[in-house]
Amino acid sequence: MTRASGTFARLAIPRGAALLALSALAGPPHPVSAQSGADVASAYRRAHEAEIVRDFAEMLTYPNRARDIEDITRAGLYIRDRLREAGAASELLTLDGVAPLVYGRLSVPGATRTLGIYVHYDGQPADPANWTHPPFEPTLYSASMEADGEPIPFPEAGEAVDPEWRIYARSAGDDKAPIAAVLAVLRAFREGGVTPTSNLVFFFDGEEEAGSRNLGRYMDLRSEVLDEIDIWLFFDGPAHQSGRPQLTFGVRGSMGMEVTVYGASRNLHSGHYGNWTPDTGNILAHLLASMKDEDGRVLVEGWYDTADPIGDEEQAALASIPDVDPLLREELGLAWTEGQPETIAERLLLPALNVRGMTSGNTGALARNVIPNTAVAALGIRLVKGNDPAHLRQLVVDHIEGQGFHVVSEDPDMETRLRYPRIARVTGGGGYPAARTSMADPFVQQVIGAASRAADRAFGPGALVLAPGMGGTLPLYLFTDVAGKPAIVVPVANHDNNQHAPDENLRIANLWYAIDLYAALLTMPGGV
Amino acid sequence: MTRASGTFARLAIPRGAALLALSALAGPPHPVSAQSGADVASAYRRAHEAEIVRDFAEMLTYPNRARDIEDITRAGLYIRDRLREAGAASELLTLDGVAPLVYGRLSVPGATRTLGIYVHYDGQPADPANWTHPPFEPTLYSASMEADGEPIPFPEAGEAVDPEWRIYARSAGDDKAPIAAVLAVLRAFREGGVTPTSNLVFFFDGEEEAGSRNLGRYMDLRSEVLDEIDIWLFFDGPAHQSGRPQLTFGVRGSMGMEVTVYGASRNLHSGHYGNWTPDTGNILAHLLASMKDEDGRVLVEGWYDTADPIGDEEQAALASIPDVDPLLREELGLAWTEGQPETIAERLLLPALNVRGMTSGNTGALARNVIPNTAVAALGIRLVKGNDPAHLRQLVVDHIEGQGFHVVSEDPDMETRLRYPRIARVTGGGGYPAARTSMADPFVQQVIGAASRAADRAFGPGALVLAPGMGGTLPLYLFTDVAGKPAIVVPVANHDNNQHAPDENLRIANLWYAIDLYAALLTMPGGV
Repeated sequence: MTRASGTFARLAIPRGAALLALSALAGPPHPVSAQSGADVASAYRRAHEAEIVRDFAEMLTYPNRARDIEDITRAGLYIRDRLREAGAASELLTLDGVAPLVYGRLSVPGATRTLGIYVHYDGQPADPANWTHPPFEPTLYSASMEADGEPIPFPEAGEAVDPEWRIYARSAGDDKAPIAAVLAVLRAFREGGVTPTSNLVFFFDGEEEAGSRNLGRYMDLRSEVLDEIDIWLFFDGPAHQSGRPQLTFGVRGSMGMEVTVYGASRNLHSGHYGNWTPDTGNILAHLLASMKDEDGRVLVEGWYDTADPIGDEEQAALASIPDVDPLLREELGLAWTEGQPETIAERLLLPALNVRGMTSGNTGALARNVIPNTAVAALGIRLVKGNDPAHLRQLVVDHIEGQGFHVVSEDPDMETRLRYPRIARVTGGGGYPAARTSMADPFVQQVIGAASRAADRAFGPGALVLAPGMGGTLPLYLFTDVAGKPAIVVPVANHDNNQHAPDENLRIANLWYAIDLYAALLTMPGGV
Repeated sequence: MTRASGTFARLAIPRGAALLALSALAGPPHPVSAQSGADVASAYRRAHEAEIVRDFAEMLTYPNRARDIEDITRAGLYIRDRLREAGAASELLTLDGVAPLVYGRLSVPGATRTLGIYVHYDGQPADPANWTHPPFEPTLYSASMEADGEPIPFPEAGEAVDPEWRIYARSAGDDKAPIAAVLAVLRAFREGGVTPTSNLVFFFDGEEEAGSRNLGRYMDLRSEVLDEIDIWLFFDGPAHQSGRPQLTFGVRGSMGMEVTVYGASRNLHSGHYGNWTPDTGNILAHLLASMKDEDGRVLVEGWYDTADPIGDEEQAALASIPDVDPLLREELGLAWTEGQPETIAERLLLPALNVRGMTSGNTGALARNVIPNTAVAALGIRLVKGNDPAHLRQLVVDHIEGQGFHVVSEDPDMETRLRYPRIARVTGGGGYPAARTSMADPFVQQVIGAASRAADRAFGPGALVLAPGMGGTLPLYLFTDVAGKPAIVVPVANHDNNQHAPDENLRIANLWYAIDLYAALLTMPGGV
């Protein structure tokens, strides 16, 4: 478990040297069939596996929390430069005090179709204390930690790469892997003289994990180009839990809220005041318990009322999705799931209300004999098509008031404290709504065709899962509802990539699949 | 708010120099009346206020978490040396891997009474992140922070000291102030030629905040001396909330437990799994809500059954205790208290069950879109006379099982996870039982008399409150129930000293009262 054995040191190998040589060798681009584009990318990958893994590791060394503007700018500049090296025009779009957006373009003479490719290069906050290795020191493992993998050295150029290896780092799965794969495909095409069959527009978001609050403004900066886009491909999210590849035509929305309940104006000694001063943990417990029953049904009035009913098309797609519940339960050690016997695929079509965090006083070695003066719950809300974020937020506020709380938006002053027996501060909200794209759209049909071929090739015939809605959230609505374009989510990460959690990782086989898939999508017929 | 203005730098003044001179001047000890003992201490205090405050601050610079053996040993050696300087024989009693105990003795020729003086010099863990100033950099304030006090420099020798000043540091109130006051009294007596009217045995515990698990073993090390003790005085705890001084004849016991509930075997993305994977925060909320109702009544079956009924004597004492509820509610900003309209004095005679901490995922800026794989509650339990810790612990475990949980003592393995829909790990327990001493004991009557005189002197006639039970916990049962001695709690700290919490502090007037009180107790009639 020493760093020396498995951890990647940034700039340990002189990357770029080989690449420049390749660029020089590349002939003038010309359109090719999908088959040959995929073949070229696949051959390139097999010849450069160690370099692709090392390039990916180098990208993972860049800290990328959206709110750390210096860090995220450095990460963005790095990616911009790699895009340029791979032959795409690229620049950093910036707005004051906001993570930059990496914008790129590759125009193909004669192409009649334009693909928008959305990826986000920012990552969730990572508390190193909870990670086995520092989150920005990529570490290679012989298998997943759960499967007793061990740290191994990064391979030297030309050395064999086992597709079951895992690379551990923040954003390995969510969402830098697609960038590494796209770069590999662009390089493969340059080396192999392959031209994409569509114009490409790259839109690499730097604040997706912080809510993509400025994505709309960035879109406005390049509105003329974006208007020409025929379909957006969202390279994000994990593969289906069955391990099979999937395309997803909808995402849930996301909203965070935070509820703080109040006791005395300061922490009090639990001996001298216990049994008398309000027990904030217990008060919060009653409030949270009132929001969802023990079967997992949300009790907030009206919670399920605005969810769009599931149509025939979705029902058909649902019916064909493999039942992964037994597998998932086994893997995750679950003897019970919310709403059982409903399956996870069904449950993801409903709005969710979860406790994503709770804080009050301390537990473990730091626990002290106090009654904490506050107890805080962070709520994670997932919206489905039909839900309005502001409306769901109001339902939660109404519910809290219905439980006898006086709801405030700031810490209460003494007058407020002395007036109301129960006080809750509610903050947060916003986030974004869900989105769904019709499977009947002609560009969508083209993408389904190309992805099916790549999936057949990598996983066997009929492997591709078509999911009407995935559980995760992307700012898809900006493209579907605001800009009126079809948008498809094209996930590649392994489903157990620990995204948003410590020890996030990517299985190397999934990186190889991403390369195959993107090569197919970039050379699908019909655009030239 | 700069450190320079108010923070105490250890060894900033050459302490000890003046003291050695005093020791040299002190004549041979001789018994005196209580009045003159108190007069001598009071005069000494007035002449040395700045030095006493500085000496106290120096003691407060010593980190004193019981489990940090190096720290707590340094703190113990420091106090041992101060006791020696003040004229008491003193040594450090040690046991392997355990905080040492500072033992001291001052034998008075002809004394027929022996007082045991218990203080603890360890403190609760202190997380500097939550403190206004570092917890072991004592900082003097012109008044409490709540009363808009400002940091001020420590006074130079001879400068005036305002009794409303506060000194902020871990253990300022709980429980180093009594040590500072005892040292001042011993020095005053040496300088003034006053001899105590009782033999004195000092027993300064180094792990009270960690449960005094080895106090019994330390008592065994000096059992012959301890057998001679007639009454134990526990210098600990805060004054009555009315601000009036009090004596307390009983304490609640204390026990900590921790409950962890489990979801999936790892944190899961709230988008991809929310609505399906168990919501650990909600599961914990239901469990905690089942333990206590919204009025503050514990719902654990049998919880109140073993509490000794309150006798006539306690009822009479309760009736004479000032009603501080309105004052406390006003001060603490409370429009509601548990079990109202019962008063705090009544509520402290019942066993308490509180949530002293809750942890699951993160809140605030670190909140992430995960469903945490565990949610943890630290429970703080306060026992009253008649409660057996092991019995109450079992009641809690039975309750958790009654809520449908499979209770384990270690993290569950996969087999266990896959077998039980609800799993709770329960750890902790132990702690110590409550204790109570009869007010009819003749030595108790002597102490009441001396304390009444000191209280009358400092606060006016009839100020002393006699409380049958205080809410806090001390290892009193070792002295009352195991060793069979009467034991009285003699608190001196201001009630708003933030003990166990950040920004712990002592009001200087309470240090002056401690000196008066101890001088009276050490020279009360009847022992020589």
